[in-house]
Amino acid sequence: MPQQPSPRPELPPLRDSHSTLNQIKARIAAFNDARDWGQYHSPRNLAMATAVEAGELLALFLWSKDEGPQPPISSRQASVQEEAADVAICLLNFCQQSGIDLASAIEKKLARNAVSYPEDLVRGRMEKYNEYHHPGPGARKSPDTSASDPEVSSPE
Amino acid sequence: MPQQPSPRPELPPLRDSHSTLNQIKARIAAFNDARDWGQYHSPRNLAMATAVEAGELLALFLWSKDEGPQPPISSRQASVQEEAADVAICLLNFCQQSGIDLASAIEKKLARNAVSYPEDLVRGRMEKYNEYHHPGPGARKSPDTSASDPEVSSPE
Amino acid sequence: MPQQPSPRPELPPLRDSHSTLNQIKARIAAFNDARDWGQYHSPRNLAMATAVEAGELLALFLWSKDEGPQPPISSRQASVQEEAADVAICLLNFCQQSGIDLASAIEKKLARNAVSYPEDLVRGRMEKYNEYHHPGPGARKSPDTSASDPEVSSPE
Amino acid sequence: MPQQPSPRPELPPLRDSHSTLNQIKARIAAFNDARDWGQYHSPRNLAMATAVEAGELLALFLWSKDEGPQPPISSRQASVQEEAADVAICLLNFCQQSGIDLASAIEKKLARNAVSYPEDLVRGRMEKYNEYHHPGPGARKSPDTSASDPEVSSPE
Repeated sequence: MPQQPSPRPELPPLRDSHSTLNQIKARIAAFNDARDWGQYHSPRNLAMATAVEAGELLALFLWSKDEGPQPPISSRQASVQEEAADVAICLLNFCQQSGIDLASAIEKKLARNAVSYPEDLVRGRMEKYNEYHHPGPGARKSPDTSASDPEVSSPE
Repeated sequence: MPQQPSPRPELPPLRDSHSTLNQIKARIAAFNDARDWGQYHSPRNLAMATAVEAGELLALFLWSKDEGPQPPISSRQASVQEEAADVAICLLNFCQQSGIDLASAIEKKLARNAVSYPEDLVRGRMEKYNEYHHPGPGARKSPDTSASDPEVSSPE
Repeated sequence: MPQQPSPRPELPPLRDSHSTLNQIKARIAAFNDARDWGQYHSPRNLAMATAVEAGELLALFLWSKDEGPQPPISSRQASVQEEAADVAICLLNFCQQSGIDLASAIEKKLARNAVSYPEDLVRGRMEKYNEYHHPGPGARKSPDTSASDPEVSSPE
Repeated sequence: MPQQPSPRPELPPLRDSHSTLNQIKARIAAFNDARDWGQYHSPRNLAMATAVEAGELLALFLWSKDEGPQPPISSRQASVQEEAADVAICLLNFCQQSGIDLASAIEKKLARNAVSYPEDLVRGRMEKYNEYHHPGPGARKSPDTSASDPEVSSPE
């Protein structure tokens, strides 16, 4: 009696507790390769897709209240997980196509944020780094420059 | 001779090749805890922040061309890494506050996408799953329903 | 004594009380024409720019509270106006390049939304139209279809 | 013989050629008032909705090519109009709740952009204003400040 061919080897489950970003990236890459989607996956297009998915995640939280359930409709919980996954899939795909080691980039950004947001200055506060009034001569020069400098993007 | 106090233990570097999502999440949580930012970190607020950061990433790719460099201005490369990190930081923070195992959610979403986008049907194509014309009786019923059903969000 | 040439005729002020969308569109088009920016203004690129600007507007409201001031930092008020203008500029530019009469599209969408959100059903409620449980035989068939149908976008 | 009650007066059609923003705003306000949705319409919530709708508009243009049709699937054209309308509805609603005269804000922003993007400097170019290398003493001081100053938003 002939055995059924097993077309794909069993893959280990992905879990936050033991999966590395490289392992997750590889799973996403295999999915795309099987569909020949690499032709669409320029960094710009994947940045677009990431923004689209982040908007879909945000949509699930529209009109919620500070003190109420989030998402505000409990039956959306499964969709929340799916949209969070979509954002991650697009972002990891983006990083792969752009040659970015995401874990390393996160580490660098946290280090940079630690300078922009010194613990003692910002504890419990939510202003942007350029909205704090730094006292004394050690302060960042012209901290409000970029606050009054709108982030316009030409050519709009 | 007294030793200098070492205020923080040396942390192992974060890298895609060996860092798990739990390790990265822990690093982000420590950063936030030190600033008492948990009070701002509701799921809705973190979904907002994720969308904001995804928009900042996208901004770096505005006006680029299919065949040209992406990002279109090479000096933006460092900002690309930072914005990608910002999206990831907000998303991982969101997952932590929402109790989502992101790696597991990615695995489930890839499995679901594999059904929505069968390899033989979609190879090399870019339509959404509900824009394919499924032939025959095995087809998804009313595949165009949601295409003609705008994703409006009340109360707008 | 020669008079200084007046390089541009005085333009009438733009105001919500009397400016039509065509008048505003014309002002934006003149700005772009003077900079030869039409080459960048494909519908896709302008949709990208609109999303980017909407993200910048949203950024000003991050971490605000339901009952607190919005934006949460009062000095951001001027930036709010600028970012709202940026969204509008990109969207009107998009409509012009896409041949969309925006006022007419708004009218049609409100009519459509009036069907999706009947006053008596939705008064004071915030669910999406497909999350209401329509009673009886006149109900929309399978109202939950698209709720359980994630808006995935291939090829992600 | 009793006359049928005419529940609503006939409203004049909205068109870009003759509708003012105040007329469009009034139509949107009437729609919302009839549903008692004002309770959800804080500026933050409407900024969220604007970003969500801008993402839905962008989704229709995913994976399109510079030289190909935009949107890439022609049957999406009706959805493009609807999503453009949704962005406008949310933005106008936002402006009404925030006390912003949008036409006036657009006029001011174009004037400001005219300074940031002088015609002779930027003609046919797509860099952001802070990426131009201004020659000579008349140049903006420290034009690259905000380019190297990432737009981080605390508390992320």
